[in-house]
Amino acid sequence: MINEVRNRIPGNLSRLAMSAINKRQDARTIRLVSNLEKSHGNYLVDADNNKILDVYCNIASLPLGYNHPKLLQNAEKFLPYLIQRSSLAVIPPNSWVNKIEKLMSIAPKGLDYIHTGCGCGSGANENAFKAAFINFFNKNLASYKFSEEKIYSSAMENSFPGSPDLSILSFDKAFHGRTLGCLSTTRSRPIHKINIPAFKWPKADFPMLRYPLEEFEYENILEVSRCVSQVNDILHKDRQKKRPTIAGMIVEPIQGEGGDNHAPANFFKEIRNLAKHYGVSFMVDEVQTGVGSTGKFWAHEHWNLDTPPDIVSFAKKMQISGYFTTKEYEPTHPFQIFNTWMGDPVRILLLEQILEIIEEDKLIKKTAEIGRNLLDELMQIKNIKNVRGQGTFIAFDVKDNNKFTEKMLQEKVLLGTCGENSVRLRPSLIFNEEHSELLLTKIKLCTLT
Amino acid sequence: MINEVRNRIPGNLSRLAMSAINKRQDARTIRLVSNLEKSHGNYLVDADNNKILDVYCNIASLPLGYNHPKLLQNAEKFLPYLIQRSSLAVIPPNSWVNKIEKLMSIAPKGLDYIHTGCGCGSGANENAFKAAFINFFNKNLASYKFSEEKIYSSAMENSFPGSPDLSILSFDKAFHGRTLGCLSTTRSRPIHKINIPAFKWPKADFPMLRYPLEEFEYENILEVSRCVSQVNDILHKDRQKKRPTIAGMIVEPIQGEGGDNHAPANFFKEIRNLAKHYGVSFMVDEVQTGVGSTGKFWAHEHWNLDTPPDIVSFAKKMQISGYFTTKEYEPTHPFQIFNTWMGDPVRILLLEQILEIIEEDKLIKKTAEIGRNLLDELMQIKNIKNVRGQGTFIAFDVKDNNKFTEKMLQEKVLLGTCGENSVRLRPSLIFNEEHSELLLTKIKLCTLT
Repeated sequence: MINEVRNRIPGNLSRLAMSAINKRQDARTIRLVSNLEKSHGNYLVDADNNKILDVYCNIASLPLGYNHPKLLQNAEKFLPYLIQRSSLAVIPPNSWVNKIEKLMSIAPKGLDYIHTGCGCGSGANENAFKAAFINFFNKNLASYKFSEEKIYSSAMENSFPGSPDLSILSFDKAFHGRTLGCLSTTRSRPIHKINIPAFKWPKADFPMLRYPLEEFEYENILEVSRCVSQVNDILHKDRQKKRPTIAGMIVEPIQGEGGDNHAPANFFKEIRNLAKHYGVSFMVDEVQTGVGSTGKFWAHEHWNLDTPPDIVSFAKKMQISGYFTTKEYEPTHPFQIFNTWMGDPVRILLLEQILEIIEEDKLIKKTAEIGRNLLDELMQIKNIKNVRGQGTFIAFDVKDNNKFTEKMLQEKVLLGTCGENSVRLRPSLIFNEEHSELLLTKIKLCTLT
Repeated sequence: MINEVRNRIPGNLSRLAMSAINKRQDARTIRLVSNLEKSHGNYLVDADNNKILDVYCNIASLPLGYNHPKLLQNAEKFLPYLIQRSSLAVIPPNSWVNKIEKLMSIAPKGLDYIHTGCGCGSGANENAFKAAFINFFNKNLASYKFSEEKIYSSAMENSFPGSPDLSILSFDKAFHGRTLGCLSTTRSRPIHKINIPAFKWPKADFPMLRYPLEEFEYENILEVSRCVSQVNDILHKDRQKKRPTIAGMIVEPIQGEGGDNHAPANFFKEIRNLAKHYGVSFMVDEVQTGVGSTGKFWAHEHWNLDTPPDIVSFAKKMQISGYFTTKEYEPTHPFQIFNTWMGDPVRILLLEQILEIIEEDKLIKKTAEIGRNLLDELMQIKNIKNVRGQGTFIAFDVKDNNKFTEKMLQEKVLLGTCGENSVRLRPSLIFNEEHSELLLTKIKLCTLT
């Protein structure tokens, strides 16, 4: 047993840790065990001292790789925000004003309001849905003039009109999280959904493009147009009902978990306009695409929308989770969208420094360039198909994605999988030519043999 | 305007901060603006330099008050866990094994499995519900022998049997969080629920005890017995159905948000036994009651249950959120209960040190004593009613709880409100005789005038 795994990754020490963890937690999801003290830059060092090129970055969560020296410098000022965890919406620290204004410097165009209070991407979307429901209720159901008494008492019974049967429209193959509201909009894989009750919310098809794009231009135009029409039909039918129910529509700029599915800018422009036309909140889920990896800070900047999204949710590389919106989406009453912590100020302090480094080192512009070259090179490699990407947010298809990423791991390169047979790259923003070169060599090696 | 507020709390600087925040966030919930650097022990220092006795502690979230000296000492070792945010269920750090074992030292009796991966109390309960649903599905619906194909395809359509109509039974006045699943079990106040869709889940009455307990012994026995019968009826009827739907039951040891409603140990013992009898997961929500403030580490230790709870959820003073359970509640498939971060290791490092201090300084035993004396003294005060509590988890009723706590704030004591007209004390575990004495004096003063 010990000999068998001597030179394999994960090695003996990692495997020991995994089986110890397995007694107390579900360890079946563990891929590697890291040594955080020794990891540096784009290289993860694992518990067995293997130095691994990390092109997955804790599921797209590391904006600046491991132990960035500039981040390590500024530790002491974090302490008061670490030692006591504030209830940020009740007793914010006095530095909170500056923190928020710093966050506004990265607000998507047209949005000037921020909710920072969610524990993960799911929490961000759950609260965004609530904002959309409240907004919709006020604009539409309020006209029914139910008495306050009636609304309040029915809400306590989870029934209409206090708890209205409102819904969020999402797309096939979408992934928006795993809490019960979010899971009702997630359509990526059955395993996330089985055994769990869900709201009976509608879904529409997301364009399934064919590659290479130049070759299938016509088919892809038809596909996009089909999907736009379907969204129009669903919303039109809903609005014909005595009581319309679709309050919001949520979409990822690139469907990460569902297979790195891309759609052209005009798809997003058209569904955004449909949302506006039918009075549906347009929500963009940038949990995985946000913070520069597509070559823009927010992936939806690639679309040049006529009207900005109503809500943009974020997590992962942002270190915190939440959403940007406008004052219009502030709930009618205080405490309607609220929780005890409303986020973690220590993570916001860290984000502030991360944003400074991204700007100083021009990391987004660099990521756009690196990504362009990497995409070109990948397209030349035989045995990988459907190469697609924006910035370094790149994916391609292989015959067996699990087998392939396992082979790459033995070559000390960590990649992710998604969809049916896709491999996804989610490097951090400090991924440069040197790492790109190494990655390409290893991919060539692993696709040849 | 400036003169008017010169000596009031919040003062000018705090108000300026609030209105700046209000442009970007919902600032209507803000009570005070803190100076975290200057705050110390039981005293919060606000942005205007007021030193305020904090008996609310960021909604029961500070186990050791502000800037505990022992916590400040150990900062450097936190850095690698702060600088990069790990995906804990995919690439845990090698120290993770020790962290988990440390957490197991505070596991509720009978539970040996832990989920640490939720961003707040709501996330903890959402995931606990999912564990209960999966467990119930496997035990009950699996016998229907639906094909895997049928389960998988229907789940993708949010319909039966893949997405079964399962439910969680909760209690009137309960508060279990604000995400869409949790909100369907929350029944404390309409304002949390209006405009938001909810699952049509059942609820039962929670005993409404009358005080003083000695005087209403008979009435209270009847009330408890009525509530137990109701739970029995609901579960019995559900089990008569062709397809039973109630998978779990969730209860708080003390209903914090709903008015600090207590029930005797035998109520909990009986509903726990009913849950076992009917095959319903018994979930105890210790988000607010956990970590010592009731005079036991977990409030449900006061009950001496015959069978331990199936799931105990936590957040707030724990610094992290999640739940304890048994291996039996591990989902059938990996990734069924999962998210990118699965918690925050830097908060777990902090928790580890907090637990050491609690033990070294015998803070739970001390809290039990302080609480007992404080409760006795409060019972002597005229004009406050229904004094009730366990440890320092104490509440009482006044005519107008908002007016009263506002008056107390001007006397530089911060308290919370709950329910209709209740005032709740949620001090940290370093609240001692000196603070208790000061609090009592101020309460006497504010109830006299």
